[in-house]
Amino acid sequence: MSAHWLTMMKSYREELWFETKTRRAYLNITQQVEAAVRKSGVQEGLVLVNAMHITASVYINDDEPGLLKDYDRFLEELVPQGATYRHNETGEDNGDAHIKRQLMGREVIVAITGGRLDFGPWEQIFYGEFDGMRRKRVLVKVIGA
Amino acid sequence: MSAHWLTMMKSYREELWFETKTRRAYLNITQQVEAAVRKSGVQEGLVLVNAMHITASVYINDDEPGLLKDYDRFLEELVPQGATYRHNETGEDNGDAHIKRQLMGREVIVAITGGRLDFGPWEQIFYGEFDGMRRKRVLVKVIGA
Amino acid sequence: MSAHWLTMMKSYREELWFETKTRRAYLNITQQVEAAVRKSGVQEGLVLVNAMHITASVYINDDEPGLLKDYDRFLEELVPQGATYRHNETGEDNGDAHIKRQLMGREVIVAITGGRLDFGPWEQIFYGEFDGMRRKRVLVKVIGA
Repeated sequence: MSAHWLTMMKSYREELWFETKTRRAYLNITQQVEAAVRKSGVQEGLVLVNAMHITASVYINDDEPGLLKDYDRFLEELVPQGATYRHNETGEDNGDAHIKRQLMGREVIVAITGGRLDFGPWEQIFYGEFDGMRRKRVLVKVIGA
Repeated sequence: MSAHWLTMMKSYREELWFETKTRRAYLNITQQVEAAVRKSGVQEGLVLVNAMHITASVYINDDEPGLLKDYDRFLEELVPQGATYRHNETGEDNGDAHIKRQLMGREVIVAITGGRLDFGPWEQIFYGEFDGMRRKRVLVKVIGA
Repeated sequence: MSAHWLTMMKSYREELWFETKTRRAYLNITQQVEAAVRKSGVQEGLVLVNAMHITASVYINDDEPGLLKDYDRFLEELVPQGATYRHNETGEDNGDAHIKRQLMGREVIVAITGGRLDFGPWEQIFYGEFDGMRRKRVLVKVIGA
């Protein structure tokens, strides 16, 4: 364990932009988040990483191609794109994507320790896209000292 | 991107109370959270918004009536109120509500930038109630400077 | 509601270690988190509690034995250990655990007010293990003043 007294609070904000080639996609964005934390200069604090759109997720798990397929199959079987959604009566076609994003989550918070993401051995940050093929954003907000 | 050095940390706390007229309900609470952030005076920071009860959620998604019906149908089909739950052997009747809340999440964290909720175009904060018709609370906690 | 001006930011970090006797397990870790908050000396702030492994969850709900069985049955019926997962072609056998953890969540953030976890009446912090019987860690990171 470790404790620090810090005299000055800093904040830092950055947007990451994505445009996936497929409707659903899973992108490892760990290095972009690490770069933002480095730029912030924060040594001890928290970083919030959240989808700014409501049909996409930010989540933490393993970067293993089979697992990404398992997530995709699980979500599509439980919430099929082609099922009937009241939301789609508005002219949208992404009712499924709003539910998939809810199951995978909007955001993660990662501790910053010694200026780095304080991660276990396999933790990686992913952008999960459920209604892609257009430009969408992720917010990175760092608070600390 | 933007970086700030801030000399003084502030915190602010407020409770929001709700009593829904139906067992399940989805309430847009964005304006109440915005008002709390304004009262906090925090310009750069984070706001935590969490259900203080364990059969309710706070989540972020679209304020579209069809979508709220889609969420409700999805949750009720996957975790029906009338199914058998061990929890209900205690005399409770809300086993389903504890699971529904888990799928929709307990809390959200929103970045505060320039004194405002740092949101994408459609993000709205919702209180999701799964065992309502009684007074229940949401906690708003602001940290920043 | 209450507002505080705080002059000095503190941070504190601690790891909690677990080795469950069964593959899946649900452990109440509230007291360990409370002890970490006390050691941090933080009076107003936030505590992040996250699984450092990607087949485990940290979540908040009721400490009621029937409910823990309901969660376990729900997760095992929706994502059976014995189903086919592409992830398991790598030689792993925990494809189900990666999905279960995603549904229950990686982390919680709890407000700290007056030096204590700012909880509703039944909130308890749980470590949810989905691939246990080996040593795994939870991170507790406190930020505040």
